Amino acid sequence: MADTTAAERVRVDPARLETLVATAYERLGMPADHARIAAHGVVLADLRGHESHGVSNNLFGFYLPGLRSGDINARPNIRILQESATTARWDADRGMGFVVGDIVMRDVMERAERYGCGFGAVANSRHYGMAQIYSLMALERNMIGMSMTNGVTPGVVPFQGREAKLGTNPITVTAPAGTEPPFVLDMATTTVAYGKIQNAQRDGRTVPPTWGLDRDGHTTTDPQAAMDGLRLLPLGATKEGSGHKGYGLGLWVDIFCGALSGSGFTAKAGEEENVNHFFGAWRVDAFVPVDEFKRLMDGRMRDLVSTPPLDGFDRVLYAGLPEWEAEQDRMAHGVALHPSVIVKLRGLADELGLAFDLLP
Amino acid sequence: MADTTAAERVRVDPARLETLVATAYERLGMPADHARIAAHGVVLADLRGHESHGVSNNLFGFYLPGLRSGDINARPNIRILQESATTARWDADRGMGFVVGDIVMRDVMERAERYGCGFGAVANSRHYGMAQIYSLMALERNMIGMSMTNGVTPGVVPFQGREAKLGTNPITVTAPAGTEPPFVLDMATTTVAYGKIQNAQRDGRTVPPTWGLDRDGHTTTDPQAAMDGLRLLPLGATKEGSGHKGYGLGLWVDIFCGALSGSGFTAKAGEEENVNHFFGAWRVDAFVPVDEFKRLMDGRMRDLVSTPPLDGFDRVLYAGLPEWEAEQDRMAHGVALHPSVIVKLRGLADELGLAFDLLP
Repeated sequence: MADTTAAERVRVDPARLETLVATAYERLGMPADHARIAAHGVVLADLRGHESHGVSNNLFGFYLPGLRSGDINARPNIRILQESATTARWDADRGMGFVVGDIVMRDVMERAERYGCGFGAVANSRHYGMAQIYSLMALERNMIGMSMTNGVTPGVVPFQGREAKLGTNPITVTAPAGTEPPFVLDMATTTVAYGKIQNAQRDGRTVPPTWGLDRDGHTTTDPQAAMDGLRLLPLGATKEGSGHKGYGLGLWVDIFCGALSGSGFTAKAGEEENVNHFFGAWRVDAFVPVDEFKRLMDGRMRDLVSTPPLDGFDRVLYAGLPEWEAEQDRMAHGVALHPSVIVKLRGLADELGLAFDLLP
Repeated sequence: MADTTAAERVRVDPARLETLVATAYERLGMPADHARIAAHGVVLADLRGHESHGVSNNLFGFYLPGLRSGDINARPNIRILQESATTARWDADRGMGFVVGDIVMRDVMERAERYGCGFGAVANSRHYGMAQIYSLMALERNMIGMSMTNGVTPGVVPFQGREAKLGTNPITVTAPAGTEPPFVLDMATTTVAYGKIQNAQRDGRTVPPTWGLDRDGHTTTDPQAAMDGLRLLPLGATKEGSGHKGYGLGLWVDIFCGALSGSGFTAKAGEEENVNHFFGAWRVDAFVPVDEFKRLMDGRMRDLVSTPPLDGFDRVLYAGLPEWEAEQDRMAHGVALHPSVIVKLRGLADELGLAFDLLP
């Protein structure tokens, strides 16, 4: 997005946007309740400032084409293959990842209510959007939430390696606070995601040589070469940056998602797409009284944001604070979309015979 | 260590080294079984190639002085303060972290046997050595292991911040394989630990400006200034390196260790030392048959090490493989110690009236 300034963008009402998307999903075969869950997830990404996972890119890039082609199963038979008191292994039957994630996250929270914690590994799923959608669900129940997913296709090299073998494999963990915004870590295990390289290309900037390799496995500062290379570097990137750590984190995600689900790992080039997830929840009061936990969290968050910033920075943040601020703004003033996205959404509404009325 | 070459080092027998350390701990007041556990942990760090956590530094830097001063309680009353089926919050009564870790890790594995997974948060502990000691214990029981600890004193800045607020806060996760060496991730959430800066100083090298800040919060390439600054940078380090991710990982560890234990966070300068841990285990066969999991793991590990390396690198590894190779070598040929460490160990034996016979 955004060869436009913020002022050129069009603010739309998030509830109406969600209804448009849900109705489109329903017309493409999804049950109404599933369509609503999946639409809520994609709009939540826009609300939280993760436009890369919102309607601008992923709706038209993944979800609508997947439903049309049948690669995403609109009416999956999502079921447990194996379970213990606190764990389950699921088959998602190629269902929309948002729906699978919602069902499994609710299951792990039920297990956590009964036993203190719960976990689910999911095979045979499809793109589940912004990873924090599911870990955020834990907060209102005073639980710690976790969500991970392995990648659709390999686009990340092992540290020191020339060929892509992993996905961007994000990890998210949430923890509730009291009066302060909650902790919400949501990070790809690469230095950056492809979106940042695309932005540099659009703006005519070079990229740091630590973001991605070219087709031949050489470092590059040319964003086009880095895009074509499909070889992102793990977080840390280099030997002196400790790139083995980002690689280790990515492989951790791949093991929890791919091996505990029994499904296998990020697909190789040419193989059928294979997406696997892992979800978890821990009840805070299975360890410590909730009030005491929240008092500690509030104190910690206030202490961190009060840290004097380094030269060149305005302030110190923590994971989840920028997203919380984005959500406050967008709930009040609407989601800001690029005019070209408005055109695409209008086209979608016209095609499906839906009303188009998104202005707040 | 090591202004010596490998050839100048002295190889000692790990079992005899462990016995010397255990006997020293016992003379300093620890029960025999606890002394053995704590000695095993420190020698395991040397076996696994983590000399920074072995007898060379930590034995003489933390454990012996702590037992002598009474800061480490040689006979702690380690007890559960609160629990659910799968979780517990512990008070370590200032006990040696190795002993606490062993007891709590066995408890979480027992809970995992019964319910699928188990977790423990520990307050009021002391330095527990190499983080992977505890997660490694899960492997022989065909479990996934997890261990985290927050720092003794703040030596890491929040991303964009000028003051140290966190410890190096390591995360370790292990997963068993079949015939291949297991996955063992064990990483500080900083770019590097202080040991690497000390090594550069010793060797007369500069350090990358992404490792640590000086006392004034400015980037530096002078290892002495970085040591004096006590302001390591989180993994990723800079804005373009995504330093907010390493910071987020460090804060995650601090929340699991500090808030779930009810203890609070990394101590502020001048406060009493406060170390907290978090341990976890998931039974593999609570998700998927063990044979199937190991088959997937072996295939994945073989696939990764077969990746063609980038220019300038010999081969592609994965987390745990270098440590496994170090352990094979050192179990066969002994632990290689610097001559100055031999002198210190001999002095310890003399002081305590112990036999000194470490040669293999």
